[in-house]
Amino acid sequence: MKKLPRVSIVGATGLVGRSLLDLLAQRKFPLSELTLFASSRSARKTMDFLDDELEVEELTAEAFREKTDLALCSAGRKVSYMLRDWIEGTDIVVVDNSSAFRMNDEVPLVIPEVNPEALVGHRGYIANPNCSTIQLVMALKPILDNFGLRRVVMSTYQSVSGAGQAGIDELSAQTVALFNQESWEPKIFPYQIAFNAIPQIGPFGPDGYSEEELKATNETRKILGLPDLGISCTAVRIPTFACHGESVMVETEKETSPEELRAVLAAFPGVKVVDGPEDNLYPVPSMTVDLNDVFVGRIRRDLSAPNSFHLWIVADNVLKGAALNAVQIAEALL
Amino acid sequence: MKKLPRVSIVGATGLVGRSLLDLLAQRKFPLSELTLFASSRSARKTMDFLDDELEVEELTAEAFREKTDLALCSAGRKVSYMLRDWIEGTDIVVVDNSSAFRMNDEVPLVIPEVNPEALVGHRGYIANPNCSTIQLVMALKPILDNFGLRRVVMSTYQSVSGAGQAGIDELSAQTVALFNQESWEPKIFPYQIAFNAIPQIGPFGPDGYSEEELKATNETRKILGLPDLGISCTAVRIPTFACHGESVMVETEKETSPEELRAVLAAFPGVKVVDGPEDNLYPVPSMTVDLNDVFVGRIRRDLSAPNSFHLWIVADNVLKGAALNAVQIAEALL
Repeated sequence: MKKLPRVSIVGATGLVGRSLLDLLAQRKFPLSELTLFASSRSARKTMDFLDDELEVEELTAEAFREKTDLALCSAGRKVSYMLRDWIEGTDIVVVDNSSAFRMNDEVPLVIPEVNPEALVGHRGYIANPNCSTIQLVMALKPILDNFGLRRVVMSTYQSVSGAGQAGIDELSAQTVALFNQESWEPKIFPYQIAFNAIPQIGPFGPDGYSEEELKATNETRKILGLPDLGISCTAVRIPTFACHGESVMVETEKETSPEELRAVLAAFPGVKVVDGPEDNLYPVPSMTVDLNDVFVGRIRRDLSAPNSFHLWIVADNVLKGAALNAVQIAEALL
Repeated sequence: MKKLPRVSIVGATGLVGRSLLDLLAQRKFPLSELTLFASSRSARKTMDFLDDELEVEELTAEAFREKTDLALCSAGRKVSYMLRDWIEGTDIVVVDNSSAFRMNDEVPLVIPEVNPEALVGHRGYIANPNCSTIQLVMALKPILDNFGLRRVVMSTYQSVSGAGQAGIDELSAQTVALFNQESWEPKIFPYQIAFNAIPQIGPFGPDGYSEEELKATNETRKILGLPDLGISCTAVRIPTFACHGESVMVETEKETSPEELRAVLAAFPGVKVVDGPEDNLYPVPSMTVDLNDVFVGRIRRDLSAPNSFHLWIVADNVLKGAALNAVQIAEALL
C-alpha cells in the first residue's frame, strides 16, 4: 500500500484556497501532512485544519518541492507557470485551478463525473476547468450520452465570487456606498456592479468574445471530446455574491422530451433536478450556496426550433465550480 | 383644425403613471386639459404638471367619460377591462400599458418606430407592448427588414422596476435587511431578490413557460407580423433597480456580418449602438437609466451555427419599455 501523500495548498488564503482547506477536512482527505503556501504577504498567517492551527508559508521552489507529493493550486496563472517548471523531473502532481494550461493538449482537463478517463497517463499536471464550464458540462454530459448534442447557446448570470474575495468586497462596499450616496471607484469590475449587469468577464478577443465566453466554449469541447461542437456563450456578471446561474439552449441529435431530459439529468451523479413550475420550484443562487451539487430546472422545449430545449443551471461556483472539483480530481488520483 | 384633446392618465400615481406625467410635460404634449385618475386610495393626492398642481381623482366611469378624449392607462388588467367597456360607443381613445388586450386581434399592438401602420382603423383601444418585448423588437426590426429573421433565442436580465414601485421597495428593503442581518418576507417576488437571480416572471403556463416569456414570444410575432417566427425566451429577474438587459441570439435568412448589423441598427430611429469591445464599451443598465433609446452592443457572430449573431440589448423599461412608447403612440395618433 502506498504511503499517504503530503498535500500542499498553493494560494491557501484566497477564496478558493480556504474552500480547499475546508473540503480536505470535511471529506477526511487521506494525507500524511498538509502545507499551506501563499505569497509573502500572507505568510505566517494561521489557518485552522481539523484540530490543528497551521501557519501559512511563503511559496518557494525549495519548500514546495521538499514538502509536496500532491498540490492543489489556486493562485493565478503566473504561479501555475512556475509550478509547472518546478515539478519538471519530480513525481509531484499538481491539480491547478487556473486557466494557464487548460487548453494544453498534454494537460488533462477533468470533471471526475464526466471524463475521469482523461486522468490516465497524466504527466503530473492536471487542470481544473472554469467554474461556468463545470456546471454546464455536468448538465450536458447525460444529455450527450443519451440524445447527442448538436448545438449549445448559453447566457450566464455569474456571481462576484468568481472574481475572488476582492469581487465580494467590491459588491459589498459599492452597495453600502450607493445606499449612503457616497462615491466609489470600480476596481475589480469594469463598471459599477452593485444593482447592475456587466456583459464582460475578462478581456475581449478579436472576434468580440470575452475570455470567460471562450473558456466556456473551448473547455466544454475539450472535456466532452467534441472539438467541433457548436457552442456559443454570453457571459454576464450580476450582483450576486455566490453561485452562477446559466440559461442554456440545447439542441439534441435525437428526439427527446423534457420528461426524458429530467430523468437522465436526475440520474447523473452530482446533478439534482429541481423543476416544479406548478409550485414555483427551480433553483436560485441563494438556495445553492455551500451545496455540492449542480442544480437544474426550467427544463422545457424551446419554442423556436425542433429538438431544442432550455435548461436553467445553478451551482456554487467556488465549490463544484472550483475547490470541490479540484478535490474530487485529487480523490480520483489516489 | 381639430381641438386639442383632453388627456387622462389612469393609474397616475404608479411608477409608469408618474413617468407618463413627466413625459407629457417634457415633450410638450398637445392637450387642452389633463386629468389624473387613480384608485380611491390615491385620490386627492397632488402631482406637479408644468406650473400646475393637479389633484388626483378617483376613477369612475362617469368622471372618466366626461373628461377624456385620450387616455393613457397603466393601472393593471382589471382597470383595462373596465375602460374598454366604458369607451364602448364613445370616441374616447385608450392607449393601454396592461397586457389585457395585447393579443386581441381587434387591438393594435404598436411600437411607433416599428409598426405605426397598425394604428390605421383602430377601434379606440390600442395596446402598448410589454417592456422586454419593446426593446427586443426595436433591435429585431432593422435586422428583419434587411436580412430576414429565422430564429430568436433570448435570455433576459430584468430589473425590479418591471414590478412597479413595490418591486423597487422590496429590493431596497431586502438589501438593507440582509446587510443588517434582519429577517424579511418576500412579498412581490417569489424568492429573495436581493443578491439573487429568479428565473420566473409571472405564473407558469402548462408548457413550463412563464407569462413574461410568452408575452415576449407572442407579442414579438404580432408586432412584426410574423405569426410563425421561431422565438423562445427565458425571463430572469435580477437585482437591478432600473433597465432591462437582454442576451439575444438571432439567426438571419440572408448572410450578413456584425459590421452590417451595426450599420442597420445604428440607422434605426430610437436605437443606439454602443459596441467597442477594444475599449470595454457596451451598454449596462446603470448607464441607460432615464434615457429614451434602446442600446445595443456585444454584436458578434454566434460560434455555434451559420447566419447566427449575438446582441446585448439594454433599455429603460419604464421609459421606452412602457411610458415613453405609450406617449409616442399618442403622438402618432394626433
